[in-house]
Amino acid sequence: MRTVTKDNITDVFAAYFAEDTDPRTREVLIAMTRHIHDFAREVNLTHDEWRKGLEFLEWAGKITTPERNEFVLLSDVLGMSSLVDMQHSVEGATSSSVLGPFHVSNPPVLNIGGDMKRDFEGEVLLVEGTIRDLNGNPIPGAKLDIWQTAPNGMYSSQDPDQDIHSFHGLMTADENGRYAFTTVRPVSYTVPDDGPVGEILRAAGRHPWRPSHLHYIASADGFRSLVTEVFPDDDPYLDEDTVFGVRDDLVMTYVAQPAGSFPEGFELSGKVDDAYSRVDFDLILAPA
Amino acid sequence: MRTVTKDNITDVFAAYFAEDTDPRTREVLIAMTRHIHDFAREVNLTHDEWRKGLEFLEWAGKITTPERNEFVLLSDVLGMSSLVDMQHSVEGATSSSVLGPFHVSNPPVLNIGGDMKRDFEGEVLLVEGTIRDLNGNPIPGAKLDIWQTAPNGMYSSQDPDQDIHSFHGLMTADENGRYAFTTVRPVSYTVPDDGPVGEILRAAGRHPWRPSHLHYIASADGFRSLVTEVFPDDDPYLDEDTVFGVRDDLVMTYVAQPAGSFPEGFELSGKVDDAYSRVDFDLILAPA
Repeated sequence: MRTVTKDNITDVFAAYFAEDTDPRTREVLIAMTRHIHDFAREVNLTHDEWRKGLEFLEWAGKITTPERNEFVLLSDVLGMSSLVDMQHSVEGATSSSVLGPFHVSNPPVLNIGGDMKRDFEGEVLLVEGTIRDLNGNPIPGAKLDIWQTAPNGMYSSQDPDQDIHSFHGLMTADENGRYAFTTVRPVSYTVPDDGPVGEILRAAGRHPWRPSHLHYIASADGFRSLVTEVFPDDDPYLDEDTVFGVRDDLVMTYVAQPAGSFPEGFELSGKVDDAYSRVDFDLILAPA
Repeated sequence: MRTVTKDNITDVFAAYFAEDTDPRTREVLIAMTRHIHDFAREVNLTHDEWRKGLEFLEWAGKITTPERNEFVLLSDVLGMSSLVDMQHSVEGATSSSVLGPFHVSNPPVLNIGGDMKRDFEGEVLLVEGTIRDLNGNPIPGAKLDIWQTAPNGMYSSQDPDQDIHSFHGLMTADENGRYAFTTVRPVSYTVPDDGPVGEILRAAGRHPWRPSHLHYIASADGFRSLVTEVFPDDDPYLDEDTVFGVRDDLVMTYVAQPAGSFPEGFELSGKVDDAYSRVDFDLILAPA
């Protein structure tokens, strides 16, 4: 008879696989289980701790809805989402960074030079840049799906007072790969911490803050879609993003511009008399 | 600025912990996350695979109810439940083995010599043994909470045709630590495989069968409660229990007894003329 012991159970698990199993499935499931077992052995996991883990998963399952996915949030705060992003980033291309749960389908068209803040108040932020390939050539007609928080720290899907497409826009770059729009500064905000993931943050003595950022999904025919974010270099949470999304090449300076200097060619041209800020953010896409 | 990379993200995760964190919480969460990260790096986990994992957890959350806990089942089929059991087994005591999801509260009293099968048909199985301490001394008045499948392969909580206490009983050992009861042989059965855990079993080419067994929770003042199972040595699934519950010391021979030899002192004495089987299973409890 086969004797299962705490030392051989991982081998027994692997031995249960049928011979004709898909090799990648086998590789992933066996590696996953080996690491789960090694973890339990290494810390000599107790029954109480194991039950706590199961209760955590049950609770996460219970509060997960189409609008709030606690398992994605768990992956985010454990750094797993960022790790998967980073290990599939392409050398020379713009780093990818967490998608997060607040993207919405069918964003409204935002013309080049258009305004994404609509009726919201605040200092104007002018965002512009060029979308290029790995050789530095512009990608004409590349698409940018852009979204961010409102000044109250909430995305439209979290905030009953915003319409679902508030602070969302879909822009098509021009023949030189250029894009440009106006908005207000996105703000730092907290991830939801009233569920099981919040318990982990509190147990670790961690805060739930993310530095402020603009989200982008850049895409173009023949190129890999890029999910990324751009952060201002003066955000207090830059060094401690609770979902580990900050990368060197995604941090930009919001440059203060004097009153009366707002340029032509924008939806807001002629309407902005005050000082404003400007950020340049180029995106480099890898081939598909 | 702190640059998060795929190689340092585990250290950054650890660095986020506050200094006054509970040391065990810190140890467990950091080891868990290190193993999750190492897994992702080792197999170079893709975005598609990562999303599949998240969808798996969502699905498990959706079908989990008080009667069916898919996360416990996942832990069982990955060998995690058995591993935690084994690493807290005490040398010299009876091995512990998976509780499973079919235990019910408030089982009915079963007197020594009582019959647990009630009106169910089948060859009688006489089960008896002694509950002892690590020195071999009997433990008078030890309690045994006993449960098993009906002959149809279902536990009472799965089967609308059984009352909830069918094939459940709570026995108090006598002054010599002896227990004894009659039943019918439990049967091999399958774990639920119509949910996400079933997908894992199919992906691995594994079957969902468990060898037949009697469940016990043994307890006594001053002793550690023991959750265990006893298996017959002729079960075809003994070497491939899908939840890894079989241990050498839990496998017993059901000894065939000739017709007309059923003993005195049982509820069924005088009512069993046919051949029957007999199994001796002693339990050894560790001190609390």
